[in-house]
Amino acid sequence: MTKERLYLFDTTLRDGAQTNGVDFTLPDKLRVMALLDTVGVDYVEGGYPGANPLDTALFSEPRSVKGRFTAFGMTKRAGRSAANDPGVAALLDAKADAICFVAKASAYQVRVALESTQEENLASIRESVAAAVAAGREALVDCEHFFDGFKENRTFALACARTAYEAGARWVVLCDTNGGTLPNEVEAIVAEVTQVVPGDHLGIHAHNDTEQAVANSLAAVRAGVRQIQGTLNGLGERCGNANLCSLIPTLLLKPDFAERFELGVTPDQLADLTHASRVLDEMLNRAPNRHAPYVGESAFATKAGIHASAILKDPATYEHVAPELVGNRRRVMVSDQAGKSNVIAELERLGVDVDRKDPRLTRLLDEVKERESLGYAYEAADASFALLARRMLGTVPDFFEVERFSVNVERRYNARGEMTTVAEAIVKVQVDGEVLISAAEGNGPVNALDVALRKDLGKYQPFISGLRLTDYRVRILDGGTEAITRVLIESADETGARWTTVGVSPNIIDASFEALIDSITWKLLKEGAPE
Amino acid sequence: MTKERLYLFDTTLRDGAQTNGVDFTLPDKLRVMALLDTVGVDYVEGGYPGANPLDTALFSEPRSVKGRFTAFGMTKRAGRSAANDPGVAALLDAKADAICFVAKASAYQVRVALESTQEENLASIRESVAAAVAAGREALVDCEHFFDGFKENRTFALACARTAYEAGARWVVLCDTNGGTLPNEVEAIVAEVTQVVPGDHLGIHAHNDTEQAVANSLAAVRAGVRQIQGTLNGLGERCGNANLCSLIPTLLLKPDFAERFELGVTPDQLADLTHASRVLDEMLNRAPNRHAPYVGESAFATKAGIHASAILKDPATYEHVAPELVGNRRRVMVSDQAGKSNVIAELERLGVDVDRKDPRLTRLLDEVKERESLGYAYEAADASFALLARRMLGTVPDFFEVERFSVNVERRYNARGEMTTVAEAIVKVQVDGEVLISAAEGNGPVNALDVALRKDLGKYQPFISGLRLTDYRVRILDGGTEAITRVLIESADETGARWTTVGVSPNIIDASFEALIDSITWKLLKEGAPE
Repeated sequence: MTKERLYLFDTTLRDGAQTNGVDFTLPDKLRVMALLDTVGVDYVEGGYPGANPLDTALFSEPRSVKGRFTAFGMTKRAGRSAANDPGVAALLDAKADAICFVAKASAYQVRVALESTQEENLASIRESVAAAVAAGREALVDCEHFFDGFKENRTFALACARTAYEAGARWVVLCDTNGGTLPNEVEAIVAEVTQVVPGDHLGIHAHNDTEQAVANSLAAVRAGVRQIQGTLNGLGERCGNANLCSLIPTLLLKPDFAERFELGVTPDQLADLTHASRVLDEMLNRAPNRHAPYVGESAFATKAGIHASAILKDPATYEHVAPELVGNRRRVMVSDQAGKSNVIAELERLGVDVDRKDPRLTRLLDEVKERESLGYAYEAADASFALLARRMLGTVPDFFEVERFSVNVERRYNARGEMTTVAEAIVKVQVDGEVLISAAEGNGPVNALDVALRKDLGKYQPFISGLRLTDYRVRILDGGTEAITRVLIESADETGARWTTVGVSPNIIDASFEALIDSITWKLLKEGAPE
Repeated sequence: MTKERLYLFDTTLRDGAQTNGVDFTLPDKLRVMALLDTVGVDYVEGGYPGANPLDTALFSEPRSVKGRFTAFGMTKRAGRSAANDPGVAALLDAKADAICFVAKASAYQVRVALESTQEENLASIRESVAAAVAAGREALVDCEHFFDGFKENRTFALACARTAYEAGARWVVLCDTNGGTLPNEVEAIVAEVTQVVPGDHLGIHAHNDTEQAVANSLAAVRAGVRQIQGTLNGLGERCGNANLCSLIPTLLLKPDFAERFELGVTPDQLADLTHASRVLDEMLNRAPNRHAPYVGESAFATKAGIHASAILKDPATYEHVAPELVGNRRRVMVSDQAGKSNVIAELERLGVDVDRKDPRLTRLLDEVKERESLGYAYEAADASFALLARRMLGTVPDFFEVERFSVNVERRYNARGEMTTVAEAIVKVQVDGEVLISAAEGNGPVNALDVALRKDLGKYQPFISGLRLTDYRVRILDGGTEAITRVLIESADETGARWTTVGVSPNIIDASFEALIDSITWKLLKEGAPE
């Protein structure tokens, strides 16, 4: 059976730029364009030339991108000819392969938001598309508010779609602009639209306001559309646009779609999707959503003991697709929900060999459960778990001993009459019988303690020179004054390795200290430092 | 037309506890149960008694919760009678209204994961349900892997469902355990299951691995099921469970569902949903998802200029539902007019009267924006916001002044050769020209500082005697060593009033101090203490 071609239209750089908290620079946009080449989308909507200086600059010269480079903008205004409209002129001047016009397809919106007439609106669509086609550009029309418009005045909504198609638009895109349409409505309405515009000229543009942008996009495909608009990681105004990182794997890996359709995305590109998703978040300095379908850090992570033992027998028991296909990986976590299987899997990953029947395994599991009930969180703190395990198996040397530490925070008026706060720490360590005392200031008590501790560890100093703290998280358990504090510290080193350690105490300084010591010890163990 | 009743089954405390990074304590679970009362769910699944000490303790005594309190666990093992199975015994011992058994409904899973036979599996379901019913409990059966099982061996999957129903289960719940099933498949399969078990005895349990847990749940309802299982904020293993915070508003506000069904959730409860969602995140110290449908901070936020001006003409132009219905609010980020309305509304709520045209309002708004960009969070810290507003309106007396403080944490060996840590603080305060110095020990530096600060405030001491701290939360913003620390302190007093204050600094002690001072000042203001 010949497969039908589905086209992906990426709007990360246009609708995605509407995300609260996202502000692309021009270099950002160029980097995202390179990223979209690796993803394999068919259209790259770069922005809205004429609307802001950044997008005007982006379209001022030809750009190298594998998908069709697309400029977005409004159809001509009422009362002007297309030739005479500065907005349309900016689009025709843009160095782009395609132009995506946005036009309202709702009688209510035309009346209330535009304060215009239905006839003017249809004329705008017709003349703008004709102008683009005459200039040798591929034309698309985003029919804004299409679904709400259809429910309110079906004739007018269909007239907008038909007008765009008949004027020569390659794609007529049905937009659920406010994001409130349900999948069954999308499917029923699209089926009616295909009576007016052929499905292979129809697109879907969904928003996530009921958490169904992905489902709405797939429902539209089932009903006939052949172009999907979306963004990487579901960026977009309010609750975001349809998430291409969820749609692409589903379209390629689920038989219902994979057997009927083909995309411009190769298996190698699919295997790069997790990476592309994370790179975008890093570029935007957003914490990646650990729970994102397919590409999230936890998307293939198992915590429950009964699930873990089944996964070890056959991963297909608890995985709907193989993580490698999207460039992700399986994780089996250790926690008080865990069974022996989780512990064995994690030890294997950490390179610790132990026999399934070793009685120390049961003791380790009991110890983990006991310590988690005190507040430790080993599923997050991989290095602290590895240390605990190796200690119970007797393979961690005593590299050094901290005899005492003292941390002081003082706030007072300085000589110039200003209120200032100073944090300082003193640490006394014994290494190989040698006593070393270090003191340091910091921007807070934990920072001061960290700096003092790593200032001089004698013969171990060369081993820890590349160590740095990359994240510090605090959680207060049980609240109130009797609270227990849990500290998680993430560390990294010159090799690019990252590990997390945990400390627990009623005293935040003690808890931080415990996590710091674990981090240094893990680094020394990792480097094979001599006892 | 009489509406059919849909039942909501919350599993935040059981399947939600499988979330990577979530570790509920017993007090956490009790607080979530109180929160679920405000949401209005019909069933509260508390955990898995017998599987870990926490859940065993949770079910060791009757708990006050409005929904049916439900214990989760496995059906009896092969080769034992139900009466003789320790797992089933733990469930029957649990102080619960209902028991939700999990049983595999996939021939493949029975063979590979359980290494058992189909007959044994059916017998386990039959006898376990019978034992629960005989003990006077409502019985539910989670048919694990139902959809994958149905596609592979339809006869066996249906036999599991029928057996559960015929043995007396109130609900037979169809689980998409691996989360890979698509909405059209769910709809078609559920339609077939209703030929065997009536829809008003069927439930749906969906996971979000293709980002369609919400769509799958709604598809199942359309096909006949009358119970939905889900979690607050979509917590759950891997990509999470079906998100009740998205499902509840859709079911109550979208005509397709609202006209056919009724829930146990009142309009007032719906208007509290955003709050409930945020409280859960705060409790778990997770940053709330700003883009969450309905309840996210950005769910009704508009950035685009053209959208904003339309919204000012008529909010319905760009909002699929009114934000107030779910307790959320509109944000128009480009318009400081809209911001001013928000500030006025909040001041009114706090009993601060101010004229709309007062120029100090604009300054207050700028100050709030400036401070929020530094890390302050006034939406959570109502008392700090009220103090900031009153200071700018010139109505906060200078009750006292802290001239200096010093906090010391020291860890060393004591006389008995044990390692101990001591935290102590000294505070020097000026009240009415009188200088007061107090010192105190605490279980950590912040506790020591708090105790010292409230030990002697001179003439103000009687006003603060009923003050106590009820929660202390820390969030590190931006991570790493350059991190900024935000501290939120919740306080309460003898009248039952509660308020929250905020402090921000690179130094956690400074940030805590700021929040403590705000809390004491708010209490003095509230009591009308003289200057």
